[in-house]
Amino acid sequence: MTQPTELQTIAGGGLLDRRVFLKKGITFSVAALASESLLAETDPAQLPWMKTPGEPLSNYGQPSAHERKTIRWTMGNSMADGNGVSWTPLHDLEGTITPNGLHFERHHNGVPQIDPAQHQLLIHGAVKKPLVFTMEALLRYPMSSKLCFIECGGNSNAGWRDVPIQTAAGYVHGMSSCSEWTGIPLKILLNEARVKGRAKWLIAEGADASAMNVSIPLEKAMDDCILAVYQNGERIRPENGYPLRLVAPGWEGVLNVKWLHRLHLSNKPAMSRNETSKYTELLPSGKARQFTFVMDAKSLITHPSYGQQLNKTGYYQISGLAWSGRGKIVKVEVSADGGKTWAVAELQDPVLSKCFTRFRIPWHWNGQTAILKSRATDETGYVQPERDALIAARGKHGYFHYNAIVSWQISNHGEITHVYA
Amino acid sequence: MTQPTELQTIAGGGLLDRRVFLKKGITFSVAALASESLLAETDPAQLPWMKTPGEPLSNYGQPSAHERKTIRWTMGNSMADGNGVSWTPLHDLEGTITPNGLHFERHHNGVPQIDPAQHQLLIHGAVKKPLVFTMEALLRYPMSSKLCFIECGGNSNAGWRDVPIQTAAGYVHGMSSCSEWTGIPLKILLNEARVKGRAKWLIAEGADASAMNVSIPLEKAMDDCILAVYQNGERIRPENGYPLRLVAPGWEGVLNVKWLHRLHLSNKPAMSRNETSKYTELLPSGKARQFTFVMDAKSLITHPSYGQQLNKTGYYQISGLAWSGRGKIVKVEVSADGGKTWAVAELQDPVLSKCFTRFRIPWHWNGQTAILKSRATDETGYVQPERDALIAARGKHGYFHYNAIVSWQISNHGEITHVYA
Repeated sequence: MTQPTELQTIAGGGLLDRRVFLKKGITFSVAALASESLLAETDPAQLPWMKTPGEPLSNYGQPSAHERKTIRWTMGNSMADGNGVSWTPLHDLEGTITPNGLHFERHHNGVPQIDPAQHQLLIHGAVKKPLVFTMEALLRYPMSSKLCFIECGGNSNAGWRDVPIQTAAGYVHGMSSCSEWTGIPLKILLNEARVKGRAKWLIAEGADASAMNVSIPLEKAMDDCILAVYQNGERIRPENGYPLRLVAPGWEGVLNVKWLHRLHLSNKPAMSRNETSKYTELLPSGKARQFTFVMDAKSLITHPSYGQQLNKTGYYQISGLAWSGRGKIVKVEVSADGGKTWAVAELQDPVLSKCFTRFRIPWHWNGQTAILKSRATDETGYVQPERDALIAARGKHGYFHYNAIVSWQISNHGEITHVYA
Repeated sequence: MTQPTELQTIAGGGLLDRRVFLKKGITFSVAALASESLLAETDPAQLPWMKTPGEPLSNYGQPSAHERKTIRWTMGNSMADGNGVSWTPLHDLEGTITPNGLHFERHHNGVPQIDPAQHQLLIHGAVKKPLVFTMEALLRYPMSSKLCFIECGGNSNAGWRDVPIQTAAGYVHGMSSCSEWTGIPLKILLNEARVKGRAKWLIAEGADASAMNVSIPLEKAMDDCILAVYQNGERIRPENGYPLRLVAPGWEGVLNVKWLHRLHLSNKPAMSRNETSKYTELLPSGKARQFTFVMDAKSLITHPSYGQQLNKTGYYQISGLAWSGRGKIVKVEVSADGGKTWAVAELQDPVLSKCFTRFRIPWHWNGQTAILKSRATDETGYVQPERDALIAARGKHGYFHYNAIVSWQISNHGEITHVYA
């Protein structure tokens, strides 16, 4: 096993220059030299799938049976049928796209099974021309695509607990997913309905059995909101809002109203359940924050992370995700010594606004205890805070908008746990 | 119905400035004014999905039952079990990502069901250090992601026929799909195996029952090839190469070897079936083209296209896809008068190299016969040819690499057919 030289190390705990393995002469050295016994294992005569024809073509593919552990983890509310969440398994994924079957869910009264031929969108209230759109009509409108994350305001809320939760990374932070959404810029429809001067808010309502509704400032609606019809190329799936979803890039998930069937223009917000009793945050002062729309910058190391195991010392790639509701990620720093020293990770192109950004950095683990952290900076200059700083500013009764730095501890046996450090 | 003014029209047949509907005062006018009867239809008391709780959360989502027509169309070879193709339904999709379940397939002996714990990659031949990699070892190597298309060299080959085929756009041109592939840069593994000076080719072999193999120039392997483990975030699905696929961005599909288990370095190509009797093209001179790796620039209007129906005159958005194996698409022009005049379409950001690029342009259909075409230009200056020019250069016995401009004819009844024009 080669050891990194001082020249290759760029921060404490064995963090390495991100381009070190693209140079000749420095090798990752994890593979085995080909030996007689190893070669025998690659012998086609020994492999069942090289001896008989495979499965036929299919109309719609599914994951391998060997990947059945890669699932959304669901948690229902036993007090209210149809109320619950499911988490994206970010610790099992790579890249930046979330496949549609694994996009997180948050439902207030289950997943309606809507017939698109019966679905309509009503735009009314403070408009000069109230309009009704069938899906057939909407499909004729100009469309636009946006690769962006959607994150529940309640994502990562286990971070407020006094004891660090011991759960896989995605099952704590995976109420955030990233897709290419395609649909009609909301501005086009609002222009057609001719919004009255007094209108300042849109009250958006879904066609589920809870008629979930929230209020959205008109300014955001006229900026970059789209009425999405397609997710990652195909029509949106039922649990993500089929046949129509309001997508508000960078803003908390609850504003991205699924099964959208009504937009009511008004001079004031609705003050609905999901913007008063929920999705508000009690501050140390005793006052509560409300209408905290934008999701602040956050990052998370997904490999290695809780529940994974390092079996050998040597080279690893640290890999994770960063995102910000305020624009592009400009920097992700990684520490392998609990925050004493930091090194800048490589950001995977393309780096897009309000979108998952994958960061990666090579690391040499020497077999000793180590604490890994990542820290994101977005294009507004905002830097992801340490947990102490977040709690000092916001107290511990906020529940929503937890975005502190996450720390993973590697034991000298290669076990990975979640720590506050 | 409003009519476009001369100011808004930018080419014959009713093509409009791409930003026209973002301005105030010009409306698409497809929606209906809200009337008593229309409002009654949006009454929650009338909608079954607003009266009872919906379906529960799920571990892995699936498309709506109302979208069962959005499938890969499969065609097996009756002479050889497991040999066939399936097409991506590009005419039903929007945006640029192909969801994993709909990525096209091309198999030579079916889809092997590989146990990743038994899968190994061997790198041998003209190398100083022959290596064997388990999947566990490969997962420790540095990874990189690339959003790119993969297109079969035989895609669109119906275009060589004398009579224009009347089939949905995706079922002629949908042996092309676009995903985010994540895996190990091949260069890193080749550096570790220490390639000998005489090596000029890699012979890549899959672990299917046909042991499908092709030859790839070393220069490409050291440039941008990756050994992909993830597709659109999750592990690659069986029909796309689980657990390991060679991805050669921009090069013909057959080089993107699925179920990769062997890379043999050599000073000459293998001259295998799939680079001699197949995937070569007979030219008018009687000679054949061989090793025609790069997929030339191509574009295709997906909406409106064959099989769709325009029910009313008025505004539509023309939308389609363009791609080039040589780099970025820099321009897509659209014609609504059979090629007499052209207008520049809007390209959806981000425009990425060797990746699907979505183009869109608004259009006013006046109810008369019209012929729609699209023409792509890539960053090398290459312009997608008209069919006559392609056939003059290459003859009609090539079968592979058909990339001519596609023409859709709209009848005065709004029916859409495929024409050579």
